[in-house]
Amino acid sequence: MSNDTIGIGVIGYGYWGPNLVRNFATHPSVRLIGVSDLDSEKLATSKRLYPGVITTFCYDELLKNPAVDAVAIATPVHTHYELALSALKAGKHVLVEKPLAQNSDLARRLIDEAARRGLILSVDHTFVYTPAVRKIRELLLKKELGNVYYYDSTRASLGLFQSDVNVIWDLAVHDISIIHHILDEEPVAVSATGSCHVVGSPENMAHITLFFDSACVAHISVNWLSPIKVRQTFIGGSKKMIVYDDLEPTEKIKVYDKGITVDGRSDNAHQFRIGYRAGDMWAPHVSPKEALQVEVEHFIDCVRSGTRPISSGMSGLRVIEVLEAASRSIAEQGKPVLLKRQQYRSPQRATATV
Amino acid sequence: MSNDTIGIGVIGYGYWGPNLVRNFATHPSVRLIGVSDLDSEKLATSKRLYPGVITTFCYDELLKNPAVDAVAIATPVHTHYELALSALKAGKHVLVEKPLAQNSDLARRLIDEAARRGLILSVDHTFVYTPAVRKIRELLLKKELGNVYYYDSTRASLGLFQSDVNVIWDLAVHDISIIHHILDEEPVAVSATGSCHVVGSPENMAHITLFFDSACVAHISVNWLSPIKVRQTFIGGSKKMIVYDDLEPTEKIKVYDKGITVDGRSDNAHQFRIGYRAGDMWAPHVSPKEALQVEVEHFIDCVRSGTRPISSGMSGLRVIEVLEAASRSIAEQGKPVLLKRQQYRSPQRATATV
Amino acid sequence: MSNDTIGIGVIGYGYWGPNLVRNFATHPSVRLIGVSDLDSEKLATSKRLYPGVITTFCYDELLKNPAVDAVAIATPVHTHYELALSALKAGKHVLVEKPLAQNSDLARRLIDEAARRGLILSVDHTFVYTPAVRKIRELLLKKELGNVYYYDSTRASLGLFQSDVNVIWDLAVHDISIIHHILDEEPVAVSATGSCHVVGSPENMAHITLFFDSACVAHISVNWLSPIKVRQTFIGGSKKMIVYDDLEPTEKIKVYDKGITVDGRSDNAHQFRIGYRAGDMWAPHVSPKEALQVEVEHFIDCVRSGTRPISSGMSGLRVIEVLEAASRSIAEQGKPVLLKRQQYRSPQRATATV
Amino acid sequence: MSNDTIGIGVIGYGYWGPNLVRNFATHPSVRLIGVSDLDSEKLATSKRLYPGVITTFCYDELLKNPAVDAVAIATPVHTHYELALSALKAGKHVLVEKPLAQNSDLARRLIDEAARRGLILSVDHTFVYTPAVRKIRELLLKKELGNVYYYDSTRASLGLFQSDVNVIWDLAVHDISIIHHILDEEPVAVSATGSCHVVGSPENMAHITLFFDSACVAHISVNWLSPIKVRQTFIGGSKKMIVYDDLEPTEKIKVYDKGITVDGRSDNAHQFRIGYRAGDMWAPHVSPKEALQVEVEHFIDCVRSGTRPISSGMSGLRVIEVLEAASRSIAEQGKPVLLKRQQYRSPQRATATV
Repeated sequence: MSNDTIGIGVIGYGYWGPNLVRNFATHPSVRLIGVSDLDSEKLATSKRLYPGVITTFCYDELLKNPAVDAVAIATPVHTHYELALSALKAGKHVLVEKPLAQNSDLARRLIDEAARRGLILSVDHTFVYTPAVRKIRELLLKKELGNVYYYDSTRASLGLFQSDVNVIWDLAVHDISIIHHILDEEPVAVSATGSCHVVGSPENMAHITLFFDSACVAHISVNWLSPIKVRQTFIGGSKKMIVYDDLEPTEKIKVYDKGITVDGRSDNAHQFRIGYRAGDMWAPHVSPKEALQVEVEHFIDCVRSGTRPISSGMSGLRVIEVLEAASRSIAEQGKPVLLKRQQYRSPQRATATV
Repeated sequence: MSNDTIGIGVIGYGYWGPNLVRNFATHPSVRLIGVSDLDSEKLATSKRLYPGVITTFCYDELLKNPAVDAVAIATPVHTHYELALSALKAGKHVLVEKPLAQNSDLARRLIDEAARRGLILSVDHTFVYTPAVRKIRELLLKKELGNVYYYDSTRASLGLFQSDVNVIWDLAVHDISIIHHILDEEPVAVSATGSCHVVGSPENMAHITLFFDSACVAHISVNWLSPIKVRQTFIGGSKKMIVYDDLEPTEKIKVYDKGITVDGRSDNAHQFRIGYRAGDMWAPHVSPKEALQVEVEHFIDCVRSGTRPISSGMSGLRVIEVLEAASRSIAEQGKPVLLKRQQYRSPQRATATV
Repeated sequence: MSNDTIGIGVIGYGYWGPNLVRNFATHPSVRLIGVSDLDSEKLATSKRLYPGVITTFCYDELLKNPAVDAVAIATPVHTHYELALSALKAGKHVLVEKPLAQNSDLARRLIDEAARRGLILSVDHTFVYTPAVRKIRELLLKKELGNVYYYDSTRASLGLFQSDVNVIWDLAVHDISIIHHILDEEPVAVSATGSCHVVGSPENMAHITLFFDSACVAHISVNWLSPIKVRQTFIGGSKKMIVYDDLEPTEKIKVYDKGITVDGRSDNAHQFRIGYRAGDMWAPHVSPKEALQVEVEHFIDCVRSGTRPISSGMSGLRVIEVLEAASRSIAEQGKPVLLKRQQYRSPQRATATV
Repeated sequence: MSNDTIGIGVIGYGYWGPNLVRNFATHPSVRLIGVSDLDSEKLATSKRLYPGVITTFCYDELLKNPAVDAVAIATPVHTHYELALSALKAGKHVLVEKPLAQNSDLARRLIDEAARRGLILSVDHTFVYTPAVRKIRELLLKKELGNVYYYDSTRASLGLFQSDVNVIWDLAVHDISIIHHILDEEPVAVSATGSCHVVGSPENMAHITLFFDSACVAHISVNWLSPIKVRQTFIGGSKKMIVYDDLEPTEKIKVYDKGITVDGRSDNAHQFRIGYRAGDMWAPHVSPKEALQVEVEHFIDCVRSGTRPISSGMSGLRVIEVLEAASRSIAEQGKPVLLKRQQYRSPQRATATV
C-alpha cells in the first residue's frame, strides 16, 4: 500500500467532522471516499462541497466499501467504542476523535483489537500536533528550561455544555495529552475538585493537580462558564520559564530568561537566601500551519509505513486513565487517587515522528 | 478620646512599615509618635523623613509611652503574637500586619486579650479596603450577578520567597479575606495541593479549593515562581460575571452580561439544552484612592468610636483557620479537610462600615 | 424582478473573490451563475466547490449570459473601470471592489452610465457594513458622544505591498468611507505626507489629516511595513469617547464616559481652568455577523427594489476625491489641498438602509 | 570642584520639582541647599520632608547663596528664560525643565550666556535618559535594524491641558528629543496639523511629520483628549523593527525580526515582487532604574568635569527649532516648513556619555 492512494471514510459531519474532511480532501495521497452522518442537512452540505463523495446515513456502508482503507470517527463520545470496534473488525485503520472511548476498559479492547489485526489506531489529540506544542517539546528536550518545575494551564470559555461528558473530558483532555507528550515522566497521583452549577448537568468547572515522582507538578483549570476565553499555560523551570497563550495570533510562546538563584549559605534563618534573575524574553517564530493538517499527514504516513502514531491508542488510554482518576478524586472532594503504572502494555511497535 | 488626636507608634520599618507610617503621618487626627526597628539604617531613613518622631531599637519604649494610643505592627509573621500581646497588655489598640498570628490558637488568645481590655484589634487585610473589592462587594450585595457560582483567583509573580511562611500564608491570605468579605457564606471544607521547588524552603506554589454548602466554589492559585505577574480573579454568577484584574491601571473590574440559559424541556438526553447569552460589558469607574489610606482612616474611626473594624481579629482568625486547613490538606496531597464552624466566638461588638 | 431570484456572475477569483462567491452562494434569493478568472487553477478550485457554476477565462461570457442580472468585480484596481463599464453597458447591475476606479473622472463616467441605464452601481466599502461601524454610527446619530471632536485611526501591518496602488488607496480608503458614513459633514481640505521605502514601489506609509468646517478633525495613519497588525480608531467627543479596535475578538467598541469640563471663569491666565471627568467604560455587544453577508444582502435588496445602496457609486466617488487630494498633498510634503464641494451630482435616488 | 560636594538649589516645587529634589537629595555627592516656590503650602511640604533645607518664596535668595553651585528650574515655561538667565549671571550651572525656553531666540541667548561664563546648561529631556531609549539607541548604533525607515510615535492621554503651551510643546517635545538622540541625521523639513477643541485654549491634538534627507521619516501624534493613555513608538528598519511601549511594566522594547524581501526581477509589473520575513521576537531586559536618577547623576558629572551634557542647551535649541517650525506649519494646515540647518553653533565642548 505504501505508495498508493489511501481511501478515507469519515463518520460524523457535525462540529469537527468538516475539518477532518477538508484536511483529508486536500491531502495529495488521499482519496476521500465517503461521509456518513445521521443528519440529512449535514450530508447535503458535504455533498455540495465534495460532489464526488458518497454520502450515507449508514456508516456500515463505508465499512463495507473496499475502497476505504481507513476511517475517521467524529461522533459523540458514547459512540466512539462501538464505531471504532466495528471499523477495526472491518479491517480499517482508525482515527478517533478524543477521548478514545468512554472508559479505560473499552479503550484497552480497542487497542487489543487494533494490535491483533495489525491496524493503526490513533486518537485525535490535536494539540500535540500544533506547531506551538511541538516547539515547546523541542525546547524541553533541549533542556532549555533546566528542570521542569511545573505545568499550570487554564482553559476557560463560555463553552458548549455537553451532556455526555463533563468539562474535564472535554477540555482537560487536551492538557493531559500535552503533558504526556512534552514531559519525560508520567503522573503518579491525581487530586481534583469539580463543581456543577446547572442541575442535572455534568461538572462545568474543575481543577486538577497531577503529582509526579520528581518535584514537578501539573495543574489544570477548566471552566465552561467563564465570561472570557482563556487558553494559557505557564511552564516553569529551573533556568527559564514559558508562557504559552494559544489565543495570541502570532507570539504564542514566550520564553523568559528569569528565575531564582539559591544562595547556599544562610546564616540567618529569617533572611532571604533566594535571589532573582531577570533577563530577556524571547518569542520564537511558530509556524502558522494548521495542527489538523500536520496530524492528518502523520496519520497517513503511519498507515502507509505501519509505524505507531504519536497519538496512538496507548497514549489515548493513558489520558483516559488520568481522566478516570481525576473523576474519582472529584467525587471525593480532592482526595488523592494513585495512578497504577505500567499496568497495561499491548505489543509495542515503533512510534513515528512528525 | 473621640475628638482628640490619636497617638500612633509603628513597630517594624521594613517593606510595609513605611507605607503605614506615611498614611498615619498624613491623617489629620493622628500624631505619629514613634517608629521602632532593629535596623539602624532603616531608623535613620524614617528619622530623615519624619524628623519629629522618636526612633528606637526597642519597641517597648513605644509601648511604655503614654502618648501612644495605638500601635501598628509590621514585622515578620513569627513575631506578631508576642508583639501584639505585649501591646494589648500595655493598653494599646493594635493593627497587625497579615496574618494575625502564626496559628489559630495564638490568634484566639489575642482576640480574648483585646476583648478583655476593650481594645481594638485589627488585621491589615488591605485588599478588603481597595475600592475595587468594595465595588465588587456592592455589586454582589445588590445581587447584580444573581447567585454566585464561583470565585477563581490567580496571584502569581516572581515573588519574594519568604522563609517563615509559605506561599499560601503570603498570597492566598488575600483571597481568603476577600472571599470572607464579599460572600455571605463561609467555606465548609478545603482541598489544597502545594509544591516546593527549592530544597529547604516552604511551598512556593499552591492551589486551594474551598467548598461551601451552596453550589458556590472558590479556587485560589498562588505562585512565587511565575515569569510574569498575574493578579486576576473571575467571579461567575447566574446572571452576570466579573473579571477583576488588579494590574489594570484603570479598568480593574469588568462586568459581563453573559451567561447560560437553561431550557427546562429536554427530550433527548444527548441534545444540548443549554443556551448562551452574550450581552454588553461594563467597567464601572473605581476610585483611585489608596487602600491603605481607607484602612488607616477606618482603624482610627474604630479606635475613636469603639466599633469593630471590618478586618477585625475575628476575621483574621477565620482566615487563619482556612490557611491551617489548607496546610493540612497540602500535607495529604489534596485530601479534603472540614472547617469547624462557629466553633469560636468572642464577645461581639458592632462592626463599623467604611 | 422583485420576488425572483437574482442571477450573479463574479469576475475575479483571487484574494477577495472567493468571499464574494461564498456569500452570494448562500443567499436564499441568489443564483450563482458563473465565475471568471484568468488563472486556470483558481477556476478549478471554484469549480470543485461550486460544481454547478460556469467557470470561464472570459468575463464577456458572463456579461452575455442573460441569466446574469448583476456582476461583482474583484480584480486589480486598474481593471475596475473597463470591467464595470462593460458590465453596465451589458445591462448588468454592478458591485465593484474598492476603490471604484483609478481616478475620479473614470468614477464619474461609471456613475453616469449606471444612472443613464437605471442600474445599481455599488462599491465594496465593506467596513460600512460591519456591525461595529454600524453601532458607532448609531451612537453618533443619537449624539451619545456630544459634538465629535476627532476621528483618529491607525491601520498598520506587515502588509501586502501592491504594485498598482499605494498604501492610501489600499488602507486609508477604509477610513475615508467610514468617516463619510458616520459623520454628518464632509471634509473640506486635506494635508497628507507619505513615504516610500522600497525603490520603485508606491508609498508604503502615509499620514492624512482631513479638515472640516467645524472643529472636527480626522487623522488616518496607514503603514504596510509594521511589525505588528494594528486596526485601532479613537473617536473623541465633547461628552464621551470611543476606542474601536477591530482586532478585538468580542469587545471591539469601548465607550468611555470621560472627558473634560471647562470652567467659564478664569482669573489667572496661567491657571488650569479645565477639569477632567472619569466615569464608567461600556462595551456594547456587537453582532458577530460577517460584514460581507450584510453587504451582499443589501446589494441584492437594492437590485430588487431599485433603491440606492449605502456604498453607492457616489459615495465611492467622494472617497476617491479625498484619495486624489491626499495624493496631491503627499507630492507636496503636506501642503493642504482644498476639496471642491458638491461639484458633481448625478441624478439622485433614495438611499436604502441596511 | 571635582571631588567636592555640589550644592543644589531647586526653583519650583509643583508637579516635577519634588522629583528633582528627591533625586538630588539622595545623590551621594550633592548637598541640597534650598528650595523656592511661590506657594507656601508646597514649601511647607518640602520643609517637612527635608527639614535641613532652606525654603524661600524668593528664588534670588538661592542665587545669592554661595553654597549653591547649580540650580534646577521646574517652573512654568514662560518663566524659564528669565530664571535661567539670572542663574547663569549669578554663576550657577543650570538644569532647566523642558522646553529650554519659549522660543529659539531666547534659547540661543541662554546658550551664549552659559558658554561665555563656562557654565553647564542642561535641559531636562528626561526620555533620553530612560533605560529603554538608551537601549534603542544602542541597537540603532549597532545597525541591528539595518537602515532606519521610520519612527512613528503616539503620546495620548486625558492629559493636563496647559495654558501657556500647546500639546506639541508639552508632549511632542519628548519625541523630538528622542529622535535627535537616536538617529544620526537631523530633520530637514516639517509638516504638521493641529486642532483645538476648547475655545481659547492652545492646540490639544496634533500630528507632525519630520522629513529627512534620507528615506527616513518621523511621525508624532500627540493628544491631550484621549480616553486612554498611549505611549507607543514604532521604529521600522530594513532588517528589523521595534515596538517601544513605555506603559509596559517590564517588556518595554520588543524587537521583531520581520520585514520585507525585495525580489530584483519583476517580469510582470502588476505582480508582487515583494516577499515577507517573519522571524522571532525578542524583548531585551531593560533596567528599571529611574530616568531622572540617571539624568541627575549625569548632570552632576558634567558640572564636575566641565563636559557637555547629552541634553545640552544646544540639543534643547534644536528641539525648539523643530517645535517652532511645526507651529508655523500647523498655522498653515500642514504646509511644509524647511528647517534651517547648522545655522547656529555656539563654541563646542566635548559631550559626555552616560
